[in-house]
Formats: sequence, C-alpha cells, structure tokens
Amino acid sequence: MIAVLCGGVGAARFLSGLLSVVAANDVTAVVNTGDDTELHGLSISPDLDTITYTLSGRVNPSTGWGVAGDTFTAMSALEGLGGESWFRLGDLDLGTHLYRTGRLRDGASLSTVTAEVAASVGIGLRLLPMSDDPVRTRLHLERGDEVGFQEYFVKLRHDVPVSAVSYAGAAVARPAPGVLESLTGAELVVIAPSNPVLSIDPILSVPGIGQVLRERRETVVAVSPIVAGAALKGPADRLLSELGGTASAAGVAHWLRGSCGTLVIDVADAASAGEIEAAGVRCVVAETVMSSPAVAAGLARSVLQAGGAGDGTRSRNR
Amino acid sequence: MIAVLCGGVGAARFLSGLLSVVAANDVTAVVNTGDDTELHGLSISPDLDTITYTLSGRVNPSTGWGVAGDTFTAMSALEGLGGESWFRLGDLDLGTHLYRTGRLRDGASLSTVTAEVAASVGIGLRLLPMSDDPVRTRLHLERGDEVGFQEYFVKLRHDVPVSAVSYAGAAVARPAPGVLESLTGAELVVIAPSNPVLSIDPILSVPGIGQVLRERRETVVAVSPIVAGAALKGPADRLLSELGGTASAAGVAHWLRGSCGTLVIDVADAASAGEIEAAGVRCVVAETVMSSPAVAAGLARSVLQAGGAGDGTRSRNR
Repeated sequence: MIAVLCGGVGAARFLSGLLSVVAANDVTAVVNTGDDTELHGLSISPDLDTITYTLSGRVNPSTGWGVAGDTFTAMSALEGLGGESWFRLGDLDLGTHLYRTGRLRDGASLSTVTAEVAASVGIGLRLLPMSDDPVRTRLHLERGDEVGFQEYFVKLRHDVPVSAVSYAGAAVARPAPGVLESLTGAELVVIAPSNPVLSIDPILSVPGIGQVLRERRETVVAVSPIVAGAALKGPADRLLSELGGTASAAGVAHWLRGSCGTLVIDVADAASAGEIEAAGVRCVVAETVMSSPAVAAGLARSVLQAGGAGDGTRSRNR
Repeated sequence: MIAVLCGGVGAARFLSGLLSVVAANDVTAVVNTGDDTELHGLSISPDLDTITYTLSGRVNPSTGWGVAGDTFTAMSALEGLGGESWFRLGDLDLGTHLYRTGRLRDGASLSTVTAEVAASVGIGLRLLPMSDDPVRTRLHLERGDEVGFQEYFVKLRHDVPVSAVSYAGAAVARPAPGVLESLTGAELVVIAPSNPVLSIDPILSVPGIGQVLRERRETVVAVSPIVAGAALKGPADRLLSELGGTASAAGVAHWLRGSCGTLVIDVADAASAGEIEAAGVRCVVAETVMSSPAVAAGLARSVLQAGGAGDGTRSRNR
C-alpha cells in the first residue's frame, strides 16, 4: 500500500504516472482541501477535481485543470448579469459542483461524495479529502489585508507579496475517515510534487496527520516541486522566499525535512544533493518534469525505489 | 398604476401583452414564489425567471419557460455522476441561478436580487417577489405523502391526486418591500391567468396581501386560466376539482370571488356568464387564449376596460 499526499496539477500528474506502475487498488491519495471554496452557493474542491479529471483522462491538457473541451455558457450568462466570474467554472465542471453541493446539502460528507464521484468516473485508487471538516488556506498579504486561497491564486494571479499563511479551521479539523489508517498502514508515504506551503502544509496542519508523518519520516519520500530554483507551476518559489525559506530544491528539503526522510530532486538540481543530505534528508536525483506519461511513470519508479517499496515492476498492473 | 398578481407562463404572456398597451413604468408585477426551490445548493425561482425571460424576449417559445436555445451540458455531466436531473437546468439558465444564489448568500434579499436581474436584462416594469421570506407550496397527495411543488409539478408531472395544498412559511412571511403599497395604491389590480391554487393562492396566503385584495375587490380583475373546462397549461383543472371546486370558468369565479369583483372569461365560456354574475362576480367575455402577441394585447385591453382603467390606448407606449 502506498499513500500519497496531494495538491493539484503536479500531484495529479504524479498519480497518473504512479498508476501506470502500481495497481490502483494499492494507492490512497490524501488530498488538500485548503483550496476549497464556496462560489455562487456551490461547493468547489479544486484539488480533488483536478485529480479526478486527470485520472479519468478528461482534464484540459493545456491548463492541467478543468475539463477538456468544456464550454462556459453559464459563466457568460452570469457575467451578463454582472456576477463575479473571475473563477471560471465550465459547464461540464459545473455538473461536478452541482453534484457535490447537492449531496453535501443532503448531509453526505465530503469523503462520501468524493468516493461517489471517483466510483462514477471509474478511478480505481482510493481518493480521500484530508478532512471532512472545512479547512481554508488564508493568505495574509504584505499590503495588509487577508484573502482566501482562490482570491489570491486566481483573482490576484498570486502576484502579490505574502507575509504569512494560515489554515483556518485546521485546529479543530479531524482527518477524514481512513486518512490516518492509510498513512499509518502504508508501506510508503509519498509527498507529491505540490506546493509545500499551499498544498502540503494544509494537509500536515490537520491534527494527527503531521504527527504520523513525523513519526515515520524515514519511509516518507517527497518530490521537489521546485526545479532549478523555480516552481513548474504556481507561486511555490516566491512563497518559499517570502515566508523565510529558499526557492530551491534544498529549500524544499529544509521546509519538509520534519516530515520526510527522502527528497527526490530533478537532475537539474543534482548539485544540491550534498546540501540536502547535510540537512538530514536523503537525496535521490531523477527526471521530475513530467512532460510525458513516460517521464511521470519513470518518476513514480524512482520514488518507489527511493522508498524501498519494490523496484517499480513488482506490482505493475499494465 | 396597475399591479398584477402573477404565476408563471400564463402570467408572463399576459404581462407581455399588457406592456404593449401600457407603459412598463406603470406596471408592478407581484410574483408567486411558492414554487421556489433549492436544487444542488442553488436557489431557483421559476416564476420570476419565466417572467424575466419572457419579457426580455429570451424565453424558450416551445415550453414557455427556460431560455431559448439553451444547452444542457452541466445537466448531462450531473447525470453522468448519478445526480438528480429531473429538474432540467439549462446552462444559460444556470447563470441566473448562480447569480441569484451568490447574491442571496452575500445577504441580499430576493427582491433586491430580482430588481438587479430585471435591470440587467432591461425589463421596465417593477418585478417583485411576493415575499423575501420563504413560502413553499406543499402538495398533500391522496396516496398519503407530502411533496414540494417541483417534485409534484416536474418529477411527478402533476399526474397524482392531491388531497390538500398548503403554503409552508406563509403564516410568518412578510410581503416584500413595495408589495402592499403597490397593491393598495394601484388604480387596478389584475389577477393574471395563472393557476388559482398553485400560483395565486400562495400570494394571497402572505399576511396582508389577501386582505388588501378582499378590501378592494371591486377594482380587482381576474382572468380565468380555465377555458372550456380545461387548463391551458398545467393542472389547474384537476386541482380545482380535487380540492372541492369546479374545473370551469365559473369554478374560477367561485374560487377567487373573495378577491376579485370581475372575471374575464374566454369566448368559449360565454354561456357561463350568468352563473358567474350570479356568484357576485361581474363577467367580461374576451379572447383569452394568448396564441399571439396581438391576442395578448387585446386581452390586456379587455382587462383594462373591465377594470375601468382607461381604454387601453391612453397610456400606450409603443
């Protein structure tokens, strides 16, 4: 069994690679919900949906999120009425949000709804939100105010300096059913190449989850989302700098070293291996820029080997 | 000033005719919200939307509700996930529901949102929900259970016997701002050709509204939605029968006689005029089946004349 802590696009691509070398039944994804939001009365879970769309082969390949070929008819009508439309919800995508919102209103938990959606679209792995309780990532901006994740990420295009990040609700959130058991029982825990501040830390902030990882850090392998000093996508680089870390593979090692014993870094950062090992984190060099399914599969094999979880072919299922 | 008590499709067509012979500024529509519902977390106000779509020329002409040329992409995705899709929400239509729901969640009242939507699409008349408080029409079925309006109307296709109807929340609902003033101050109040049980009675059930109409019934003109013993649309005929009334123009006169002094009936029912007058309701015979804009305009003129509110050309605005 392998458990993966996941954010959005990078994690989705990593999972896609992992499922090409490991049976889906053997994988549990524990997904960040700190980005979740409510818009126009609808409950939106961006990271869960990105993973669902990616693993079901329906993701928009040019963005890495949303549904391929989606239309924006409802958005255009909303815009015509003067409604807020900076968060673009495609019509097909809306179907997911309508389903989720309706079920949540019926009293179903987010983890139940997530399992239903995963089953409907035929995703074999176990997909768990980190918590059924609301945790909301809040960005405290240098200019003085505080905004929610989506306002920072989408509306402000993460182009504003951040002075602090908090995870509202985390202190009283409980891990979703199955999360702690999966993380405790897994042969290997992987921290996917996701933003450490915005995708991984919210998961670790849920009481119990961070502790499990700290206790088993020797069998936790993280993949650096920073390559050659830059984030492949999003603001991980500038956030690490703004919050007192370093925008580099070594900076990721320092940021996550309490929770992982091994960090997989890109070949472009091979020279940082020494610094990372010196920080007490084993370092594995691999090709991490998942520009093709083959690279993603290769990265998954490297992670499995780094974690001692087989040679990447033992449980190959296709 | 003319105030019109309105339900859905019939009322929308009547208003359309009225606005061709009276300046829109002189008209206030007080609209039934007993059909309102919440689906997938979205706040749906079918009668308000039917009127908005009709008066802005965007209504689906074949159904009388929904937006012409709408697509159902979100619905198809929802269906794919196993979601409830018996209430068909088109993509353009969804834009309206997203806007309304978002604004209501922001704390705006339904009457504020309704005015915003009317202004956006350029409807000149004053469009008021009967109340900003929730009133929900409930159908008590002969088979023993109780269902909401949309489940009765759409899901069960109003094809089940009803033993009673109630308006949940009506006892504590307040008329929306402007409703009582409009009804009190209007030269003429019109009860549009809408279902007496499902569209008009919910409005009359809001404390204060029924009383105003009873007090000024001599200057209230209703239009019968029953022609030759049958409803032009929907279950008005069978409901009148099931609830102890009669499915006829005379039956409408009996049902509404406390609230209107005059009833406009169709030429097909001219023979009922005596029975209606005997029930204490003045009777006017006109062409009421609004098969074209010209007929709708003619009906509006007949109603104005019946109410003594001018000859129907005095305040003609186009």
